[in-house]
Amino acid sequence: MFRQCSRSPPSPPSPLLQELSQAIYGYVWVVVAFQYSQSLLDQRRGFKRKQSFFFFLIRPNLYRLDILLRSGFVMAGESQKWILMATARAPTNIAVIKYWGKRDENLILPINDSISITLDPDHLSATTTVAVSPSFEKDRMWLNGKEIPLSGGRYQNCLRELRSRAGDFEDENRGIQIKKEGWNKLHFHIASYNNFPTAAGLASSAAGFACLVFSLAKLMNVKEELGQLSAIARQGSGSACRSLYGGFVKWTMGNEMSGRDSKAVQLANETHWEDLIIIVAVVSSRQKETSSTSGMRESVETSSLIQHRAKVVVPSRILQMEEAIRNRNFSSFARLTCADSNQFHAVCLDTSPPIFYMNDTSHRIINLVERWNRHEETPQVAYTFDAGPNAVLIAPNRKVASSLLQRLLFYFPPGPDNELNSYILGDKTILQEAGIESLNHIEALKPPPEAKDKVPSQRFAGDVSYFICTRSGKGPEVLMEEEHALISSQTGLPKIPI
Amino acid sequence: MFRQCSRSPPSPPSPLLQELSQAIYGYVWVVVAFQYSQSLLDQRRGFKRKQSFFFFLIRPNLYRLDILLRSGFVMAGESQKWILMATARAPTNIAVIKYWGKRDENLILPINDSISITLDPDHLSATTTVAVSPSFEKDRMWLNGKEIPLSGGRYQNCLRELRSRAGDFEDENRGIQIKKEGWNKLHFHIASYNNFPTAAGLASSAAGFACLVFSLAKLMNVKEELGQLSAIARQGSGSACRSLYGGFVKWTMGNEMSGRDSKAVQLANETHWEDLIIIVAVVSSRQKETSSTSGMRESVETSSLIQHRAKVVVPSRILQMEEAIRNRNFSSFARLTCADSNQFHAVCLDTSPPIFYMNDTSHRIINLVERWNRHEETPQVAYTFDAGPNAVLIAPNRKVASSLLQRLLFYFPPGPDNELNSYILGDKTILQEAGIESLNHIEALKPPPEAKDKVPSQRFAGDVSYFICTRSGKGPEVLMEEEHALISSQTGLPKIPI
Repeated sequence: MFRQCSRSPPSPPSPLLQELSQAIYGYVWVVVAFQYSQSLLDQRRGFKRKQSFFFFLIRPNLYRLDILLRSGFVMAGESQKWILMATARAPTNIAVIKYWGKRDENLILPINDSISITLDPDHLSATTTVAVSPSFEKDRMWLNGKEIPLSGGRYQNCLRELRSRAGDFEDENRGIQIKKEGWNKLHFHIASYNNFPTAAGLASSAAGFACLVFSLAKLMNVKEELGQLSAIARQGSGSACRSLYGGFVKWTMGNEMSGRDSKAVQLANETHWEDLIIIVAVVSSRQKETSSTSGMRESVETSSLIQHRAKVVVPSRILQMEEAIRNRNFSSFARLTCADSNQFHAVCLDTSPPIFYMNDTSHRIINLVERWNRHEETPQVAYTFDAGPNAVLIAPNRKVASSLLQRLLFYFPPGPDNELNSYILGDKTILQEAGIESLNHIEALKPPPEAKDKVPSQRFAGDVSYFICTRSGKGPEVLMEEEHALISSQTGLPKIPI
Repeated sequence: MFRQCSRSPPSPPSPLLQELSQAIYGYVWVVVAFQYSQSLLDQRRGFKRKQSFFFFLIRPNLYRLDILLRSGFVMAGESQKWILMATARAPTNIAVIKYWGKRDENLILPINDSISITLDPDHLSATTTVAVSPSFEKDRMWLNGKEIPLSGGRYQNCLRELRSRAGDFEDENRGIQIKKEGWNKLHFHIASYNNFPTAAGLASSAAGFACLVFSLAKLMNVKEELGQLSAIARQGSGSACRSLYGGFVKWTMGNEMSGRDSKAVQLANETHWEDLIIIVAVVSSRQKETSSTSGMRESVETSSLIQHRAKVVVPSRILQMEEAIRNRNFSSFARLTCADSNQFHAVCLDTSPPIFYMNDTSHRIINLVERWNRHEETPQVAYTFDAGPNAVLIAPNRKVASSLLQRLLFYFPPGPDNELNSYILGDKTILQEAGIESLNHIEALKPPPEAKDKVPSQRFAGDVSYFICTRSGKGPEVLMEEEHALISSQTGLPKIPI
């Protein structure tokens, strides 16, 4: 099942000048790529997927240059010099039936099932390169170019789970052999990058942990099904487990104490309901927000509504939502999505001290949608808000999405310093369909027909930072090309700039 | 029990000039004041109250002037010329365990008990004059000087209930006799005035209906206990029933289909916990708000949390709140008050479409209080919000209230056009105790010690319209002095300006 490509290993160390020129001009690297195709599990809904995984086995010589520049020629043992790397990209996801509340804080076991849509990784994803080398002295991680501590229990939990499942690795040509147990002695360098602002509150930890677990599993030859990987990613960040699949994903809360059965399953892949268009409104916020980890802990401890939600309300909504997705019933989907977002925020409000994630701008976006839905007498658009003020708006098709974008831009035109190009990100074709090609077109937008107030409609320039137009997307994938790697194959450190 | 004071009736009509001079210079009026003292019901908590009621029987001659000026002298039957009036003042109240949701829309029967504090009528009350005369051709009402239709079912329900309980009235000297049944044929003129802005969302309808029912009951000689009057006021506006008593009041939801047992009881009068200081922050709002009537109907129809709240959460909170009030346990009182306000707003959010009464300023006030409470490790201040963005803040004593006012004024200084005198209304002595005598003192306020952020604290000038400093107050009372009457004893129409 593995296909290995390797160049012959480099010549043994030669005298100083030869070493220098070799180090500077001709870093020889050997790529050992493993392509591993597998039919993926989850045939639950009759969908099959293929994925290709590639590994890079990189043999940099830079450490020699480093050593040479410091003190002259030093012979290092060949066996210490290799770096093994894997790079992957994983999507973020937005819950339409919300996860809020844990029954086990350490294992991250939820008090109810949840359902999400995976967003197109072209617009919202994390890319992570994991590297291992006997020359690494400790585990290190860089997020968006900045080193962050890896001491957190959640990283350690994921690493421990993966190490315990790691497989043997062998490259006979290069004399590299890592036994299952050997992974425990090796350290990792991890570099991760989000293609969207981390601070924007767009489930960056979900994409991040999904990507970390996915790429490490590939690197360490972990032979687990995606579902089991999702249960590992869950221990990094609960919602990360749902980012292991594309399309529509359910996180089943499970019953086992170990958490083995608290994992993601794919309800339908990203081709099942392709017409849906998703517009994210990144809302400007002056407020420091409660982290979702502490927020949901406080909700479980203090809300007198959360258990009723988890035990009575959500189970029935999960069944209805599965049916709505199966039948592509947008009305039902929208009603459930909005109601569940609102109920999640209601539980936050019922927490002591109360948690406010939505602000006045969020409320205005909801009112805009509700007014429109009422005017048309059937849901046009669904909205959902995670642990922050950003709105995620879901339209049934491109036509409605362009009407939605017109409304959004009427009420929330860009602030004075914005350009159209940086105000609408992602799939800009919807902007064209809405007939908007310049800021003047936004200026000239008329109030929507449902705005019947006698007073002129108020516009809130600058209250939205930017919009991202996107759609449902695929699950994690390995990135083969060296150019996508975030860690230098020579230094074992993040490329700068990444 | 009744004491009647009467002058002799005026002389019969005389020639034109005599009539004119009499009408202009010497409107003779007869005051029949009934003083009615009664020990009041509600000895539930061992408190007794005395109340004095006065009636005015006014015999104006202005109708003669009116007729004379139009067409000369017309002889009207003496029996048609009298106007009987009563004026009363009733407080507003703020719920600390909230009423939200009806089980009977017409009778206004709630789905749970609620508890409120009656606010000092000197600062927040309605004054209502009700007048009856055989010369009135229809029921009419003026609110704050503007005529409003009386066709609404709620007014009619109250009028019907009171008419059915009206007593006989007789003034032998003047030959006025109204039999029980006679009230059905008479029409009322009603003028009402709030001593606070109606639009501010400060339970003006509670004070208004309490005052209407109370003054009409006095006028019509309705011999019902206050509790039964509260059940009538309830049919005008649910929370109005709680404004029939001072101090701490419980509205028991009752069980009977007729609603007879859905009425207010006094838990403790206004002297029971005199130290409490109440500061109302009237928050500027750009949003049009959902009326509480339609809001609670939609909550009952669509929220999947409201029934759990009504049936499981509130009953236990009612018991705890009664105990906290009985023992003047401020910590417990504050925790329950805040939690119940937040839960009420959570249920509003769980409604479809969701209802947002609080805005960013409301949230900031809550955060201010929660931060302070957490810093002191025990509740300093309680907050509660009704169906609007205004905060009602309750401090255990004047010292804490002045600390609260300093914090409020630090974060919410007046806007550029405000003066201190119009920015702090009600009991201004707390302002003095806070050491604030001018706008410069507000400008110079330091951030509170719990604001530990490294970034300078943000101040939100103009986000609060004004503050009202008040306290717990007494129930409705009749106003004896002619000067308090809102209806002219001559014209039977509202005095202008009132």
